Amino acid sequence: MTTDRDRRPAEEERRPTTGGARAELKQERAVRTRGQVLDAAAHAFAAKGFPAVTILDVAELTGMTKGAVYFHYPNKEALAVAVAEQFYERLPAIADGVRALGLAPLSAVAELLTRTATAFRDDIMIQAGARLQIERSLIKAPLPMPYTGYGNLVSGWLQEARDAGELSAGTDPDVIARVLISAFFGAQHISWVLSDRADLAERVQEILDVVLVPARST
Amino acid sequence: MTTDRDRRPAEEERRPTTGGARAELKQERAVRTRGQVLDAAAHAFAAKGFPAVTILDVAELTGMTKGAVYFHYPNKEALAVAVAEQFYERLPAIADGVRALGLAPLSAVAELLTRTATAFRDDIMIQAGARLQIERSLIKAPLPMPYTGYGNLVSGWLQEARDAGELSAGTDPDVIARVLISAFFGAQHISWVLSDRADLAERVQEILDVVLVPARST
Repeated sequence: MTTDRDRRPAEEERRPTTGGARAELKQERAVRTRGQVLDAAAHAFAAKGFPAVTILDVAELTGMTKGAVYFHYPNKEALAVAVAEQFYERLPAIADGVRALGLAPLSAVAELLTRTATAFRDDIMIQAGARLQIERSLIKAPLPMPYTGYGNLVSGWLQEARDAGELSAGTDPDVIARVLISAFFGAQHISWVLSDRADLAERVQEILDVVLVPARST
Repeated sequence: MTTDRDRRPAEEERRPTTGGARAELKQERAVRTRGQVLDAAAHAFAAKGFPAVTILDVAELTGMTKGAVYFHYPNKEALAVAVAEQFYERLPAIADGVRALGLAPLSAVAELLTRTATAFRDDIMIQAGARLQIERSLIKAPLPMPYTGYGNLVSGWLQEARDAGELSAGTDPDVIARVLISAFFGAQHISWVLSDRADLAERVQEILDVVLVPARST
């Protein structure tokens, strides 16, 4: 149930103001609140999974009313989609960070997977996004398609590695990319279930050693 | 609600009989019915996931009443545990089939993963078990711990391979086993999401080529 007290901030944000600076301040506050709601949703989804989370859980985590949460996201599905979209913004952001280092392509792939493992261990938005992805059939809203974007990225860098002579002849960059992606996401899921991702960094290092080292040109 | 009509078969199965042959026949029928319920539950869990399945879904798939289903499994959690246990009986059964071929250890590992991929593609009990495993946090009953049994099996066979001189020196069988298991379960999940497992056999062959071939002693 939405009370008048719940509705007030929402209407204030909607009402046109005369002072431009005041409107900007309200805009900023709305963006910040939206971010807090999203962050709380990520904590809730990561901890309990989509079916068990309620809007009240999210409201309680932010210290807001349910009405304030509903103002930003009309339902739980909208929250799940927004968290999943954040997840798919963070993966390319990790890739941008690696690109900025100017490493050779094969080292860049290794650095990308290492940093992604750290992000899966430490970033609640990524943990929530990963969990929502495996629960996608229980969510009545279209989520971004998983794995393909990240897979294409790794595949492209491995093609650069082959063009630069870093991969041995006869190695297919697409095959190596698919095996790396399968092993990475398999390891992150198994590590989540068995050790709450405590051993994920080690598992990913093993994958890099076993899959990338033999593919390197000698 | 349980009606008298629902209760009758259950009470018949419980009532002691004088004729031994008749009792045996009833016992057989109970086992068969239990198997039908389990099979229907596997279809339902694989298709809809644990949270969305109802006992009525399972009853309708068997053509039985809800009461008949409840006689065999007191609730949905008990059905999920029984399906998951079936899953964990089928994986060692695949291994027994491979052992019977008398292959060299490294070929045995490849054959095991190939047959397991086929089973994931074709066996509804395994598909249901895999899905219940990723939904395990939504199920209020303890499910068998995943991955470890299968991982130990692969690890043991790879140790035999090293002892038989099939693996190159300096190769750690446990590391190879962990990478294989991560890649296998990652590939089966990704293949399920992206292509309903249509490409799983190819993906597993790639994993064997990329992970096992370089580890072989030359």
